[in-house]
Amino acid sequence: MLITVAIDCMGGDHGPSVTVPAALSFVRKHDDARVVLVGREELIRPLLGPRDHARVSILHASEVVEMHEPPALAIRNKKHSSMRLAIDLVKRGEADACVSAGNTGALMAISRFVLKMLPGIDRPAICAVFPTFVGHVHVLDLGANVDCTPEHLLQFAIMGTSLVAAIEHKERPSVGILNIGAEDIKGNDVVKRATELLRDSGLNFVGNVEGDGIYKGGAEVVVCDGFVGNVAVKASEGLAQMMATFLRQEFNRNVLTKLVALISLPVLKHFKQRVDHRRYNGASLLGLKGIVVKSHGSADAFSFGNAIERTGELVRSGVLARICERVAQQQPIQETV
Amino acid sequence: MLITVAIDCMGGDHGPSVTVPAALSFVRKHDDARVVLVGREELIRPLLGPRDHARVSILHASEVVEMHEPPALAIRNKKHSSMRLAIDLVKRGEADACVSAGNTGALMAISRFVLKMLPGIDRPAICAVFPTFVGHVHVLDLGANVDCTPEHLLQFAIMGTSLVAAIEHKERPSVGILNIGAEDIKGNDVVKRATELLRDSGLNFVGNVEGDGIYKGGAEVVVCDGFVGNVAVKASEGLAQMMATFLRQEFNRNVLTKLVALISLPVLKHFKQRVDHRRYNGASLLGLKGIVVKSHGSADAFSFGNAIERTGELVRSGVLARICERVAQQQPIQETV
Repeated sequence: MLITVAIDCMGGDHGPSVTVPAALSFVRKHDDARVVLVGREELIRPLLGPRDHARVSILHASEVVEMHEPPALAIRNKKHSSMRLAIDLVKRGEADACVSAGNTGALMAISRFVLKMLPGIDRPAICAVFPTFVGHVHVLDLGANVDCTPEHLLQFAIMGTSLVAAIEHKERPSVGILNIGAEDIKGNDVVKRATELLRDSGLNFVGNVEGDGIYKGGAEVVVCDGFVGNVAVKASEGLAQMMATFLRQEFNRNVLTKLVALISLPVLKHFKQRVDHRRYNGASLLGLKGIVVKSHGSADAFSFGNAIERTGELVRSGVLARICERVAQQQPIQETV
Repeated sequence: MLITVAIDCMGGDHGPSVTVPAALSFVRKHDDARVVLVGREELIRPLLGPRDHARVSILHASEVVEMHEPPALAIRNKKHSSMRLAIDLVKRGEADACVSAGNTGALMAISRFVLKMLPGIDRPAICAVFPTFVGHVHVLDLGANVDCTPEHLLQFAIMGTSLVAAIEHKERPSVGILNIGAEDIKGNDVVKRATELLRDSGLNFVGNVEGDGIYKGGAEVVVCDGFVGNVAVKASEGLAQMMATFLRQEFNRNVLTKLVALISLPVLKHFKQRVDHRRYNGASLLGLKGIVVKSHGSADAFSFGNAIERTGELVRSGVLARICERVAQQQPIQETV
């Protein structure tokens, strides 16, 4: 089966100079994939080599959604933007998924407006993967919803576990809820009531996960409201950046430490690879009738390439059908409660 | 002026074996300080050397608040606990402050029950210091309150800036609010309304701080509700621990990398010192009619010693008077709004 990924080539800090090379190498690597490069043709075409036309097409878009454009305005005024046209392709079935490094709020709003929600899901959620001591963890929501009900958190748990089940072929992935203590009595009212729903859900619910627990790997999926999730993940990234900077500063302190750095290079390189956030780039917008992946705005070609890879995996995994199936199973349980 | 610090010697993972040596070296270092060691006398006395009796006294406590004891039970049933007696000393004016590595919830509840709140402050907040790219930042609340109103967040801002003003002799420390985006329109309702209050407060309010912004040093004080603050700080710590572990693993991979580690030792040691969380141990419980400091439960003597040092600084700074003064200034402004 040939899969088709629509690429919003204009999004992100670097635009086509990053998105196009990443898309081309994705196609070269996967015989079963084609890409539609959506954006300003005059900027995209010069980046294609003479042998890059098999399974690559260009869809010209005359507009671009700006990074800080309010989502409502982007929906109303940017009907010919690369982001909108890429999502439209998914809507019409001409692409199996789309990926963008553009404005998150606009991507979420346009996706929701064009694609609509899956039955049984009230709100979309942003789900991303992070490394842990023992492997990796999927965390959602990371900022789509600033106020969640317990039912939303249950839906996030269903979507997150369905995603892991589909991609990693696990029958019952474990799911935890982000909280401020290990005991059930902790947390705010929403979290406490969500905990009850999760206990009764039939999911493999492992209880509370504290902030540091995200990285300890106690759960394969961690759910939280988008405000908390966004702050937690960005705070972690901030501290990680600070540590990396301090480490670099120490090795750059003087001639002697620079020499030590040279000797340590292979070790430091290995370390860097293990904690390289670019490997984990590509957050899924779950809950929509279509696959949409958000890349970091600052992504380079390696990082954006990983977001496209993740998009391809999502298409092949049949995750949307899996979520629908799981939601359908859930309904009767909720009704009898 | 002689200052007196009451030490709950029984709290934390290690009890007197950590708390007593830390208290003794604090007294040896500061001619103007005395300590009251509160806890089981039979465990504390053997740890004192023959010359350790000047400015050191022991207050026997027959009970201990357990690490997972519910706060309400600790208030009701543990009237002779080391934690309770240490706080009682502050209440009676026999100590200027107390410090404990015990159960956070119980410490907060007993402190509030015994000491009561400062006038104009509705809720206590846990405030701790973290390193940033450019210095350090005070963040509150870190878990005392899981549901905050905008008014609570304003009070946290007043307390946090008063603390920095008192300790660091700064006239108008900057304060930001933890949020998920840089624009005012972002965030949940509580944060949006708190932002309005902060703009009108007369404080040096710098607007939104994102998760990673905590460590970038854009504000000297960052306020947030206790749920978000707790999760953000613990998530950061979790990632930092993971990075430290991965770095250690890479240097321990084989004989060659171990040799490289040996050569890199001075550099790595310097790096470790800069990010050593033990240096920042000691969170203030702000808003009470008395100074109470919470140490990490897992603190070693170096770390617990830093919590005692911070306690001493708080006493000398006259922070409580400063908070009261600032709250009094605030009232008329709030009333005219």
